[in-house]
Amino acid sequence: MKTILCFGDSLTWGYDPAGPGRHPFDDRWPSVLQAELGGGARVIAEGLNGRTTVFDDFASGADRNGARVLPTLLTSHAPLDLVVIMLGTNDMKPFICGRAFGAKQGMQRLIDIVRGHDYPMGEPAPKVLIMSPPAACETPEPDFAALFESARIESAKLAGLYAALADETGAGFFDAGSVAQTSPLDGVHLDAENTGSIGRGLAPVVRDMLGL
Amino acid sequence: MKTILCFGDSLTWGYDPAGPGRHPFDDRWPSVLQAELGGGARVIAEGLNGRTTVFDDFASGADRNGARVLPTLLTSHAPLDLVVIMLGTNDMKPFICGRAFGAKQGMQRLIDIVRGHDYPMGEPAPKVLIMSPPAACETPEPDFAALFESARIESAKLAGLYAALADETGAGFFDAGSVAQTSPLDGVHLDAENTGSIGRGLAPVVRDMLGL
Amino acid sequence: MKTILCFGDSLTWGYDPAGPGRHPFDDRWPSVLQAELGGGARVIAEGLNGRTTVFDDFASGADRNGARVLPTLLTSHAPLDLVVIMLGTNDMKPFICGRAFGAKQGMQRLIDIVRGHDYPMGEPAPKVLIMSPPAACETPEPDFAALFESARIESAKLAGLYAALADETGAGFFDAGSVAQTSPLDGVHLDAENTGSIGRGLAPVVRDMLGL
Amino acid sequence: MKTILCFGDSLTWGYDPAGPGRHPFDDRWPSVLQAELGGGARVIAEGLNGRTTVFDDFASGADRNGARVLPTLLTSHAPLDLVVIMLGTNDMKPFICGRAFGAKQGMQRLIDIVRGHDYPMGEPAPKVLIMSPPAACETPEPDFAALFESARIESAKLAGLYAALADETGAGFFDAGSVAQTSPLDGVHLDAENTGSIGRGLAPVVRDMLGL
Amino acid sequence: MKTILCFGDSLTWGYDPAGPGRHPFDDRWPSVLQAELGGGARVIAEGLNGRTTVFDDFASGADRNGARVLPTLLTSHAPLDLVVIMLGTNDMKPFICGRAFGAKQGMQRLIDIVRGHDYPMGEPAPKVLIMSPPAACETPEPDFAALFESARIESAKLAGLYAALADETGAGFFDAGSVAQTSPLDGVHLDAENTGSIGRGLAPVVRDMLGL
Amino acid sequence: MKTILCFGDSLTWGYDPAGPGRHPFDDRWPSVLQAELGGGARVIAEGLNGRTTVFDDFASGADRNGARVLPTLLTSHAPLDLVVIMLGTNDMKPFICGRAFGAKQGMQRLIDIVRGHDYPMGEPAPKVLIMSPPAACETPEPDFAALFESARIESAKLAGLYAALADETGAGFFDAGSVAQTSPLDGVHLDAENTGSIGRGLAPVVRDMLGL
Repeated sequence: MKTILCFGDSLTWGYDPAGPGRHPFDDRWPSVLQAELGGGARVIAEGLNGRTTVFDDFASGADRNGARVLPTLLTSHAPLDLVVIMLGTNDMKPFICGRAFGAKQGMQRLIDIVRGHDYPMGEPAPKVLIMSPPAACETPEPDFAALFESARIESAKLAGLYAALADETGAGFFDAGSVAQTSPLDGVHLDAENTGSIGRGLAPVVRDMLGL
Repeated sequence: MKTILCFGDSLTWGYDPAGPGRHPFDDRWPSVLQAELGGGARVIAEGLNGRTTVFDDFASGADRNGARVLPTLLTSHAPLDLVVIMLGTNDMKPFICGRAFGAKQGMQRLIDIVRGHDYPMGEPAPKVLIMSPPAACETPEPDFAALFESARIESAKLAGLYAALADETGAGFFDAGSVAQTSPLDGVHLDAENTGSIGRGLAPVVRDMLGL
Repeated sequence: MKTILCFGDSLTWGYDPAGPGRHPFDDRWPSVLQAELGGGARVIAEGLNGRTTVFDDFASGADRNGARVLPTLLTSHAPLDLVVIMLGTNDMKPFICGRAFGAKQGMQRLIDIVRGHDYPMGEPAPKVLIMSPPAACETPEPDFAALFESARIESAKLAGLYAALADETGAGFFDAGSVAQTSPLDGVHLDAENTGSIGRGLAPVVRDMLGL
Repeated sequence: MKTILCFGDSLTWGYDPAGPGRHPFDDRWPSVLQAELGGGARVIAEGLNGRTTVFDDFASGADRNGARVLPTLLTSHAPLDLVVIMLGTNDMKPFICGRAFGAKQGMQRLIDIVRGHDYPMGEPAPKVLIMSPPAACETPEPDFAALFESARIESAKLAGLYAALADETGAGFFDAGSVAQTSPLDGVHLDAENTGSIGRGLAPVVRDMLGL
Repeated sequence: MKTILCFGDSLTWGYDPAGPGRHPFDDRWPSVLQAELGGGARVIAEGLNGRTTVFDDFASGADRNGARVLPTLLTSHAPLDLVVIMLGTNDMKPFICGRAFGAKQGMQRLIDIVRGHDYPMGEPAPKVLIMSPPAACETPEPDFAALFESARIESAKLAGLYAALADETGAGFFDAGSVAQTSPLDGVHLDAENTGSIGRGLAPVVRDMLGL
Repeated sequence: MKTILCFGDSLTWGYDPAGPGRHPFDDRWPSVLQAELGGGARVIAEGLNGRTTVFDDFASGADRNGARVLPTLLTSHAPLDLVVIMLGTNDMKPFICGRAFGAKQGMQRLIDIVRGHDYPMGEPAPKVLIMSPPAACETPEPDFAALFESARIESAKLAGLYAALADETGAGFFDAGSVAQTSPLDGVHLDAENTGSIGRGLAPVVRDMLGL
């Protein structure tokens, strides 16, 4: 039995733009991934609304800086075989980072954290797979339009940058944008069908990495 | 379907003193609790080795101060119906806190955090149940004996203090020491039988709190 | 006797653009407010030059992130009947946040802090009134012009955004820009007459909220 | 008109052991000091329950480490003529510091902060007066007895240590224990009469330091 | 014998754009400065890749915020006669600060830190010399071009802003851009010849400040 | 040419108990070590008065928690061949940690940091050598006697604990107490002769580890 940690933001939490609310458990992509893996792995979902790669955002009482909480999760869920990281959309807010290149640097740091962590029983670091989120699309919703004004252009660059980073670092890679599209209801989130697609699309990549 | 977050330390992680290692998934008390609830609830385990209530301990790369990471977990696992907190043993290390009374203050703070948090969809705070860990016992293991030298006396006070705190704050309470005993292998951890006992003992209290 | 905490930045501190210096005590808007309330309330001024809603700014030895120091002030001045928050101008610095929408998110967080705080005697949370600062104007002063280059456009949006936020959250609201104008000496601060106007304009709103 | 900041803990906040609650405004020692100074000074009270000199205590949602919040207060209340610091009692909790010598080191740091701070208008640092709190006494109240078990012995040493520190650093000094006694109701707090005595006893020292 | 601390970023570390790698010890500008001073001073180099003046950047496991680590270095290398600070290039990254004016504010803060620090033996603060880095130039290297897209315009303003700040604060000043040029290999770093030029150009200014 | 970082506290800084003051550069043990290595290595001294392994101590304006600043130094002095760590004495202060066992845990964390760090050019981690400080002795100096009251017993345990830790982790080890004794002037510091002895005693161990 393998153990997989899915570390992400509202796309991993399962934010439903039609609600707002949270998609049912079985519809979220980590649940779909677990189902697709057919009992070969336990999938732990750790998605936080607003989470960034490595940038502070104190607009919530929950620490949104992925670099600050990831070490804790790596220990509390150890031993792990694979960490899947899908982050970057929230980095695109103009007052958080606003540039795809910044998210690439942040993702590099998260890979370093996974690989350099002191695991509780001295076990080796798990494998890492980085996943680029689907690009933002236009939306008539005014709050999200203001918050992600530059995200449409910048988020479309993430797939190429993350693919290059995966090559440079030997991490796995999957472009969630190859199988899912953001909802025009708010421009960044996923309906149930599209979040499920990520789990289905990702499953063969994970099976390959874990030899399942 | 109810959702329950179990927030704890190595006793919740499932540290096996005979290993050292981690008890199999099905043997850990949160898993046993989920099984006992018979499909009525999803139980999320968040146990970190060395976690304290509210005290810093930088001897690990993972943030062990429960007050700093709890807000993040309350959001990433929302909406929640119940948060079960079993902490206090690590507070008893002499250079962390060393006094049962300090752990009571820490537990009070964690209850305040659960109740004052800004939940992502504006939902009301979940219920809280605080659980006193089984008291430490004597051990011939030298490292643990040094680390928990005053824990035998102080940890035995936790049940009384937490029961009083639960009364004062309207939280639920369960004394894990009423159904489980620590292992003399290291003086603080639980064998598989005893961690399971906690899940079985806790189940009726949880059913009562959640109307299951 | 009611107690009111005024939490703000240099506009609350009483920064005099003609000095530079600090306006005399009696001229600052919190003092004027107290005078207007005619003995019905004690008004505590807590204005810090450069304070933001929730953004870090380490260009000063004083912590400028409002979210980090507000909990301390809520306890040291408890019990409180009302917290008036006027912030947002410093969020408009391009390297702090630069967008009115970011300040709205920050203000939302400060409201959450007031409402979720653990008050020392268990008393209920005070009421909250959010106040939009007067919009920035053009200035020939080169340092301030550089620092607030985008503030003229963005700060003019704060009144609308804060009014909407007050509606969404049930907080009180007052637009300081409806009674006061920033000085062209530096484009963001207030002369004595205009700071006083805020206290006079705010008084009936406060009387209404507190039943004075 | 002089401005004085009183930086302290629950003894400065005005915690009433008979309540529990807060002493009326006019009974607290900073208010009494202001009255004694007869219009020559404005006295700002900044007392936080549980505040330590320089030690972290996360048992409250308010930051209790005096060294972390003092810089902010030095700026928000500038320009200041005098800072009076009465802290040390909470340092005596066994899991915070527990030794009078630690409080002396903490007080030294607070003096350094006052003297090295970057004041907003470049004004010189205010004068500093350090004040030793009245020593703890025996109490039948169980929670406070547990919390301050070693405070009776250690807090009695503060007056001598602070007097020596004042000599070494050129700070002013006043021993609050020379005019006030703690209440046996909880062993550390002051009744209305004794908190007032501190204001009356301190006034001539302040007048002398400020040339009033 | 005088002691000089050189506090900087990759330009002080000796990042070689042709490598990438680190220039040999003798080629880095602090080493050249020491050689030029002919035995009159010990020069300590503290250059961190990516260091900013006062901005957080969590894209590395090393704390890049200069304001957070400078106090530690001022104590560990005390007693000091002079602190030379060359920072600002990394502030120009669009998601760190992006504006020359922000770097000026950061540099002001670092000067305040040097002057207000509590030196271990109570010695007076060392002198400060601030140095503007050579302006960024165009580069075909895609990662650096993305990272420093606005740096060419903004970094060219640093010399003027820092010169004015030095005047306002009484600090020493040297424009490294007057003797060195950045390499087109990455647009921001220095080849061996140009890093050496800074040490040679700076030496007479340092001799003058230290009376060597 | 090898590069060695010596990471320590006042014993590494060169605190002279007879001064108080700092031993001349050539007398400090890192300088002596460099001389003994005869040109084969550059030795960088990073000793901070009061530094602990991993414990916070806010009694100074310099961050004394070794775990927080070590990553920065590992990057600013990279590439490194060896990191020598001598810490533990300050952990023995009763309100910092007070137990030798806590220092062992802290030292374990520092080893983990060295080994898991993301070095700037992707180079492998340097070797680590941990060094136990000479045990504290009795002193008539009252401040130090109070500060290190329990250090005499506890610091004598460090050599055995660190030797075991070195074995467990594959780090190098040297017991400075085998060649040097603390001065009775303050009970913890070293006179010039004894600090030099550490450099001389350590040299053959370093030569062996680095193949010099």
